[in-house]
Amino acid sequence: MSIKDEFQFIQKISPKELFHTNLRVGIGDDAAVLQTEENYEQVVCMDTMIEGIHFTKQTMRPFDIGYKSLAINISDMAAMGAIPKFYLVSIAIPTSWNETEILTIYEGMDAIAQRYKMDLIGGDTVSTKNDLVISVTVIGEVEKGKAVLRSQAKPGDIVFVTGTLGDSAAGLHLLLHKCSDFPHHDYKFLISRHQRPSPRVNVGRIVSQLGRASLNDVSDGLASELNEIAEASGMTIVIHKKFIPLSQSIKNFSDDVIYNWALTGGEDYELVGTISPIHFKELKKKCEKEGVPITEIGEVHPPQSDFVIIERDGRHEVLNKNGYNHFKKGD
Amino acid sequence: MSIKDEFQFIQKISPKELFHTNLRVGIGDDAAVLQTEENYEQVVCMDTMIEGIHFTKQTMRPFDIGYKSLAINISDMAAMGAIPKFYLVSIAIPTSWNETEILTIYEGMDAIAQRYKMDLIGGDTVSTKNDLVISVTVIGEVEKGKAVLRSQAKPGDIVFVTGTLGDSAAGLHLLLHKCSDFPHHDYKFLISRHQRPSPRVNVGRIVSQLGRASLNDVSDGLASELNEIAEASGMTIVIHKKFIPLSQSIKNFSDDVIYNWALTGGEDYELVGTISPIHFKELKKKCEKEGVPITEIGEVHPPQSDFVIIERDGRHEVLNKNGYNHFKKGD
Repeated sequence: MSIKDEFQFIQKISPKELFHTNLRVGIGDDAAVLQTEENYEQVVCMDTMIEGIHFTKQTMRPFDIGYKSLAINISDMAAMGAIPKFYLVSIAIPTSWNETEILTIYEGMDAIAQRYKMDLIGGDTVSTKNDLVISVTVIGEVEKGKAVLRSQAKPGDIVFVTGTLGDSAAGLHLLLHKCSDFPHHDYKFLISRHQRPSPRVNVGRIVSQLGRASLNDVSDGLASELNEIAEASGMTIVIHKKFIPLSQSIKNFSDDVIYNWALTGGEDYELVGTISPIHFKELKKKCEKEGVPITEIGEVHPPQSDFVIIERDGRHEVLNKNGYNHFKKGD
Repeated sequence: MSIKDEFQFIQKISPKELFHTNLRVGIGDDAAVLQTEENYEQVVCMDTMIEGIHFTKQTMRPFDIGYKSLAINISDMAAMGAIPKFYLVSIAIPTSWNETEILTIYEGMDAIAQRYKMDLIGGDTVSTKNDLVISVTVIGEVEKGKAVLRSQAKPGDIVFVTGTLGDSAAGLHLLLHKCSDFPHHDYKFLISRHQRPSPRVNVGRIVSQLGRASLNDVSDGLASELNEIAEASGMTIVIHKKFIPLSQSIKNFSDDVIYNWALTGGEDYELVGTISPIHFKELKKKCEKEGVPITEIGEVHPPQSDFVIIERDGRHEVLNKNGYNHFKKGD
């Protein structure tokens, strides 16, 4: 697609109705103008997806690309305990993509935006020579002082994770390799976990209201996220391999492969965090009410020489950002 | 450059000191958290620059690429009458760029950020296969109700423009073509207008305090910006060719070429707007104090059948987004 009339294109993607009345100026001027709420703080994040790196036409349909590009930013809001409200989209479009495909990308974004009552308020569209690039900025809000940071883990905290891990990597594997005899239901589940992640905004909101906690979303893999929390908090985290929550569908693969995906696959967009045992009880009850599985996988210890330790079959091993320590060679 | 350790890279680009104490969380968590000021509204914009489209290694050095990628977003703030405060950067890095070049891009951004006291608060870095892509989001603020919109032109308003027009296109021409006998001083001036645009935040601020006005920044060319103002305001704008401000340096080219650049070249990042004659007097005085040239180039009329008319040598012609009407064929 070449952008002959950006104005007409913008008309097509501009929302017809807005959720938020505190938006003074949306799409159509040099910038958007928002009124902010008293007693709230603004939360802002920005994430990019690139053709050939994060997706190809083989692994994702245009609708999914749009859906996921916004979902991964909403997931950052969830990890802050914030409510997502507005988004801006900058899209670089190569000639190899036609207008229908591009509009379908925006429909995918709109689908998840509707669910979270988010308004598209700006961005830009430019031509490019090679790969499609989508950058999304999301603006949300959280009550003053209630943002959940990754630096707040304390000794005695329980380490928890929502949902199941490794599914997204398993789904990508299925998309990239012909696995013709794979059970149909499991195939569908795993690829949908890769293509349409469900950010855990409701869990983030519950955590933010409970008091001190630390929180990350699982974009780069559990091992990486836990290391970030431990490092930012100056603590050591111990997790137990047998407690890592796995879906039934992933169990079609061998154990080695499963745990590699669960620890380092990433893109599950679940939440991982730490919270005091008393608050964990309450969190678990509230998550059950919301229908979100939440699992205790470990505990926070005073700082030792390593940030993250994984216990498996009684043995303790260092878990660094890229996985088990002995996996690290040849990285 | 391949991003082996994003964490280390982020450490290198993270600001050591912050200008704004209302930033609660900056780089290093899932999102940034800002406290907003009472009586202010937030202004947000997002713009992207792509290798091979907006720049090449031939036309821009890494420092310039960074400088300009932030400058064009600051220019959007200027066009809203807002004060730029924070920025987020999402950069997609191909292996053909080394770390020094990438860090120099951030230095270029930092140079203009320092000038406007802006803090880098987030974004992301990803690998890509082909072209370097930089998306920048800028967040600023403006007093409640004072944002300057493009829809506010009224009959009788004076149409004004800051600085001179066409220089950026002339600079790009010089960068792309060998013009060995071009006067050195003029060469330097014109390419610096292309590589390091000066957003007119001070003029935007003056306009926002004066009362009703309309305002755009010249990113796509005077013809396009005037059409946007006229269309958004439902008015007709008449400008006079002989009043279009030109630099001495551009006068090395022929008249036809000059006016084509001035009207449609774009990327000058000057401000164009409309304001009542009384307020224009005050605006002009204040701009003179700031050392910013400002020129009256036309006036706003009640709506006629065309949005923008250009008068040259007594004849009136329609000026559409792409230039003179008879230029449109073969677009």
